[in-house]
Amino acid sequence: MTELKTGGAQGYLRIATEEAFVTQEALDMYGEILDGPDPDPGFKSLWGFYLRSEAERPKFIRDALLGLGAGRIKDMDDRGIDKAVLALTSPGTQILSKDKAVALARNSNDELHQACKDHPDRLIGMAACAPQDPEGAAKEIERAVTKLGMKAVIINSHTHGHYLDEPQFAPILEAAEALDVPIYIHPNTLPRGQVEPLIAAGIDGAIFGFGVETGMHALRVIVSGTLDKFPKLQVIIGHMGEALPFWMYRLDFMHQAGVRAGRYASSGPLKKEFVSNYLKENFIITNSGVAWEPAIKFTQDVIGKDRVMYAMDYPYQCPAYEVEALDNMDMSLDDKKAFFQTNAERVFKL
Amino acid sequence: MTELKTGGAQGYLRIATEEAFVTQEALDMYGEILDGPDPDPGFKSLWGFYLRSEAERPKFIRDALLGLGAGRIKDMDDRGIDKAVLALTSPGTQILSKDKAVALARNSNDELHQACKDHPDRLIGMAACAPQDPEGAAKEIERAVTKLGMKAVIINSHTHGHYLDEPQFAPILEAAEALDVPIYIHPNTLPRGQVEPLIAAGIDGAIFGFGVETGMHALRVIVSGTLDKFPKLQVIIGHMGEALPFWMYRLDFMHQAGVRAGRYASSGPLKKEFVSNYLKENFIITNSGVAWEPAIKFTQDVIGKDRVMYAMDYPYQCPAYEVEALDNMDMSLDDKKAFFQTNAERVFKL
Repeated sequence: MTELKTGGAQGYLRIATEEAFVTQEALDMYGEILDGPDPDPGFKSLWGFYLRSEAERPKFIRDALLGLGAGRIKDMDDRGIDKAVLALTSPGTQILSKDKAVALARNSNDELHQACKDHPDRLIGMAACAPQDPEGAAKEIERAVTKLGMKAVIINSHTHGHYLDEPQFAPILEAAEALDVPIYIHPNTLPRGQVEPLIAAGIDGAIFGFGVETGMHALRVIVSGTLDKFPKLQVIIGHMGEALPFWMYRLDFMHQAGVRAGRYASSGPLKKEFVSNYLKENFIITNSGVAWEPAIKFTQDVIGKDRVMYAMDYPYQCPAYEVEALDNMDMSLDDKKAFFQTNAERVFKL
Repeated sequence: MTELKTGGAQGYLRIATEEAFVTQEALDMYGEILDGPDPDPGFKSLWGFYLRSEAERPKFIRDALLGLGAGRIKDMDDRGIDKAVLALTSPGTQILSKDKAVALARNSNDELHQACKDHPDRLIGMAACAPQDPEGAAKEIERAVTKLGMKAVIINSHTHGHYLDEPQFAPILEAAEALDVPIYIHPNTLPRGQVEPLIAAGIDGAIFGFGVETGMHALRVIVSGTLDKFPKLQVIIGHMGEALPFWMYRLDFMHQAGVRAGRYASSGPLKKEFVSNYLKENFIITNSGVAWEPAIKFTQDVIGKDRVMYAMDYPYQCPAYEVEALDNMDMSLDDKKAFFQTNAERVFKL
């Protein structure tokens, strides 16, 4: 394995766009939920493991998530990552009661802002918010973007089983559109009622359940007509688009078949002809968790090379060999530079 | 559009491998469930629509599903389909009570057998069974394969929320392995509790929910170690592998991470190193619903050209232009022949 260096000697900077952190305040709040009555089963499966297992992987991850200083910069250096776009890790504020969520959003944004100030050439922030308080969330997004220099909004998918296509969340979408910042919809565990069979089979998390949950969320945002109401909104989804690019033909065919037959009141005709038009015009895809040339090229081909961005998914998935594999993709330098650097510079206005 | 003809003039026969039929007995049973107390919500969304909507699509589909004679052969002729491999449409027997399921399996197998006898060069059957009675199902599979000439087993995914990895279904897997016939896991709507949010959003069916349900089923069969117990079993999944080929890198990475950390008692080490080994050695993928060159080629590349087969998904999705699009794929004649013809001949022993 060759040594990975920052600085762009390979012809592009590496900007990792779905990198996670957590604050001690959040971990303390998570611990309280785990110790409380009847915790959400998906949350318990996820954070009961990451917070309390003594296995190597969860121990590394909880330490690394808390790092916003020299340790993180060293891990970036070791992996050749020039810049990291950071977001409060899942479920962020969204498992909390409203008051706690509001406090955590504000405090974690301030903490992230300080880290970005300390490392202005290396760290970039996404704004947390508390969707439990949509009007307040819009104000916090505005503060974080205009006062703290945040470049996107992180939504850790559903909020107590509610999704961004529901009308109460309109202030959040309005704020993001008005401020011209993208919303990153990051996976969460499926809500109670849906998640239990996946937990029993050991597939509720990143292996499968996350993709179901967030693919569903993104598809809801499309078929509900939400993007017709917020046509300039840009939505980022990771994990190679949660497989929606691969499903694109079927999404288009079956959406049109359903609309023609008038099957659902909730999913009528859209302004754009196809579901895929929204994927190609309102979505940006990152390859977090998928350091795999075939899926990256497929998505570049069907969604567009200007809409596929690099992400590492640190610290959940961060072996250096993945960076090397992506450096070695059989792909023109121009396309690789768009993937690793310039798409992120455009999307986050760096 | 050029005229599509049967007979192989294009250099291969077209064998469609996930084609659906239904019997009047099944429709009558479905009607009873719909009229009964508190029908399963996913079933109600699906069959309440297909059985009772007067829109053009459901009317065409329910008529076409019942056709096992001249009408079906004409539709095959019109679309250039040389042979069709037929299965009792979803949810088949699996929404029924045990006694009704047993009766429907036997009767529908007899009816399908008669159709295949009437059109021996055109129609091929998959055996229905009633997983509600696993021992009886194994006997019915044996009867259907050895006496009726059926070439595979259709499992319309979960049976009242239960999946093939659960130990009570071992007799079914044993029978299929011993008789050397593949099991086709066809989508069903998600069970009660999981399906309701998807119904509300209009995405419970073929547009999205089916893929979630059946991708989950196939993944359960892998991570549970079921294929270590039945190593010769071959499983067919449609709809481009319910996106599992696209997820392959993440499945491998996260399965190994979970196993190393000992996260789940239900999902331990497997005999084969990777989840993807099972996809490449125990699964066959059809392109039902996905008449789309990029996804077909991707799957051929990552799973293997000998494991990707053509399916039309008649009558749910059967425009002739899709056949023409697949004829026109930029693909060698050898590979196209494997896709359209010879893989199916090998898998079903035609």
